[in-house]
Amino acid sequence: MDLHRLRDFGRTDPGVVRPSFSDVDMAAREWLRSRFADAGLEAAVDGVGNVFGRSPNPGPALVLGSHSDTQPRGGWLDGALGVVYALEVARALAEDPVTRHLAVDVVAWIDEEGTYTSCLGSRSFVGDLPDQVLAHTNDHGETATDAIARVGLTGVDRARLDPQRHVGYLEAHIEQGPYLEEAGERIGVVTSIVGIRSTRVDFVGEQNHAGTTPMNRRRDAGVAMFEFAVRLRERFSGIAGPTTVWTIGQAELQPGAASIIPGGATAHVQYRDPDDGRLEAMDVALAEVSASVAADTGVGVTAARERDPIPPCHMDPGFQEHLSAAAEARATGAWRRMPSAAGHDPMIVSHHLPCAMVFIPSIGGISHDFAEDSHEGDIALGCSVLADAAASILGG
Amino acid sequence: MDLHRLRDFGRTDPGVVRPSFSDVDMAAREWLRSRFADAGLEAAVDGVGNVFGRSPNPGPALVLGSHSDTQPRGGWLDGALGVVYALEVARALAEDPVTRHLAVDVVAWIDEEGTYTSCLGSRSFVGDLPDQVLAHTNDHGETATDAIARVGLTGVDRARLDPQRHVGYLEAHIEQGPYLEEAGERIGVVTSIVGIRSTRVDFVGEQNHAGTTPMNRRRDAGVAMFEFAVRLRERFSGIAGPTTVWTIGQAELQPGAASIIPGGATAHVQYRDPDDGRLEAMDVALAEVSASVAADTGVGVTAARERDPIPPCHMDPGFQEHLSAAAEARATGAWRRMPSAAGHDPMIVSHHLPCAMVFIPSIGGISHDFAEDSHEGDIALGCSVLADAAASILGG
Repeated sequence: MDLHRLRDFGRTDPGVVRPSFSDVDMAAREWLRSRFADAGLEAAVDGVGNVFGRSPNPGPALVLGSHSDTQPRGGWLDGALGVVYALEVARALAEDPVTRHLAVDVVAWIDEEGTYTSCLGSRSFVGDLPDQVLAHTNDHGETATDAIARVGLTGVDRARLDPQRHVGYLEAHIEQGPYLEEAGERIGVVTSIVGIRSTRVDFVGEQNHAGTTPMNRRRDAGVAMFEFAVRLRERFSGIAGPTTVWTIGQAELQPGAASIIPGGATAHVQYRDPDDGRLEAMDVALAEVSASVAADTGVGVTAARERDPIPPCHMDPGFQEHLSAAAEARATGAWRRMPSAAGHDPMIVSHHLPCAMVFIPSIGGISHDFAEDSHEGDIALGCSVLADAAASILGG
Repeated sequence: MDLHRLRDFGRTDPGVVRPSFSDVDMAAREWLRSRFADAGLEAAVDGVGNVFGRSPNPGPALVLGSHSDTQPRGGWLDGALGVVYALEVARALAEDPVTRHLAVDVVAWIDEEGTYTSCLGSRSFVGDLPDQVLAHTNDHGETATDAIARVGLTGVDRARLDPQRHVGYLEAHIEQGPYLEEAGERIGVVTSIVGIRSTRVDFVGEQNHAGTTPMNRRRDAGVAMFEFAVRLRERFSGIAGPTTVWTIGQAELQPGAASIIPGGATAHVQYRDPDDGRLEAMDVALAEVSASVAADTGVGVTAARERDPIPPCHMDPGFQEHLSAAAEARATGAWRRMPSAAGHDPMIVSHHLPCAMVFIPSIGGISHDFAEDSHEGDIALGCSVLADAAASILGG
């Protein structure tokens, strides 16, 4: 089966190491191109590394796919599942006399995982790929432009969204979370992809001798940061909806020595929610907590947006109905509508084309880890649901 | 004046960079040796780098001094003040017909600041310098043994405490804290040097995706560390005496990425107090806070001693009386008894010989910094108090 063959590119057992533009990534893309062609698609690796297989049928066409690059230490299904589903659906529809006239274009996006810049392939597809994005580098300092040149794609045509032909984009993915498995459900119809806000909070106190400086004379930036983190947790808990998450994943004390009172500290706060209004309320709460900690500790506290906020993006309601009908037919009662807590290429594409996503359960909710896996029965079921929905959207 | 001349060795204006065994440190030691000899002392740089000047008078003798090495970015008075005071006192007593029979030996210890190992010189003097201590390295990986060889002191005699001759050790030092200046006082008679305990607290949670892992399924090691820090502060505040201090100067999250829930975290807690019983109570409180945070967060919390605790050490009560009488005579009502919140060579020497220390005010409480300074009037006053006390202890 193609899904298992694709796993061989960068295979580490049980994980996969296939970061974008690596030798194994490009070998996998050449293999995917040949598989797309074998399925009767007009297939090419495009000028940014996307593998695009165009149906010979006239439109209206759906684009189906996902990304085939992985995390630095990734699982075997993240991205790969959706690419192979898309190819299977294109094949299945072409083989059935009832649906063989339908147009399904298949894509394997490049660099969704952001080895250089996240969603590079879909950004190119929608025509939103400015030079400064191509100038982003990987951990070794190579720019995306240089990577494209290194793999011999400079000047090659780039696949582009065709408004005359394309009517929507569908992507299947593993859930990467525990909700479906915990509820004993097998299909998730995605309602939206959560928005993400990242705020850097800097604390400026007074560095001093940890022995000779009395407690009441200190302005300890670390004390302020610890207090901030605990108060923020309390405030955010009061605002949170059922799927809100927030994390302080990075925090530092300066200068960071046992005998020195920290003169500086930095905390990086990230919060995600499907509702932009709730994210806005969390911004306000964070500012209020910053001000109260500054007032109570005498330490300067400044909060600043760390990078551009990613707004929540909503899946097309009509497409959701098609996916829900297919899910109910194939897994009666054992599916749900749910937001996606992780980012995906539809964050980019949905601003240009109606999108929808379907999830299958992740065992133990594990992803971005070698141990990522799903049950074979769920893998087969998800592909059938996607095929049914694609056919029904295209009126087959 | 010798104090200003000593400042020239490693001078940076206003600070001094004269770490132990550096070229400027050894040049300063050779200069000190010649100054000790000029004052009529039998002077030598000993086998670990101490400059020791023995009075030609028979005992009983007091040892007076301090260290002449500095912090990597040090002030001009830390250590130097006590060395030059000792030389001045030896000179003054020798010039006065009433006191010229008294025996004052003068010392400039090496490496009190721990460029290699703290209090190296005084450890050698009391005969407590095992090979593993000499194997400690500086930041460039050179051992103390290799440094001694590099400066040509291998095999040279080491000055040693002589129980038949030495009856006590006196050291003057800048306060390095704000208490005297804030109270408008000019002399501190040190009662004890605070004990120091250092505890490393490790938090073991579960690393996971910061988007797809629901809040109620997380075991976030960072959340546990922040909670621990805030609760510990509350508990320690309830135990603290007037001079208790505690600091979390170092703290890390692992792996330390914005989109990853920390699977691990480490906090380094240091606490100081003149009362060993209070330090013991803080140990107990820390263990209780660790257990409560573990119970409330599901994160594993283990606390372990980071290095050997330094017990509080007490200055000789009789010597304190001599210093107090001298302080009252020279600065009526403008002096106090106080603990030292920083470590000094008497921590080593007091286990073998009665010790006492006298402080003068630090401007702004600043030390271990280029900006360290004291008023000229206080510098002169402190030297007179030390001379009076030395003469009175020796019965002059």
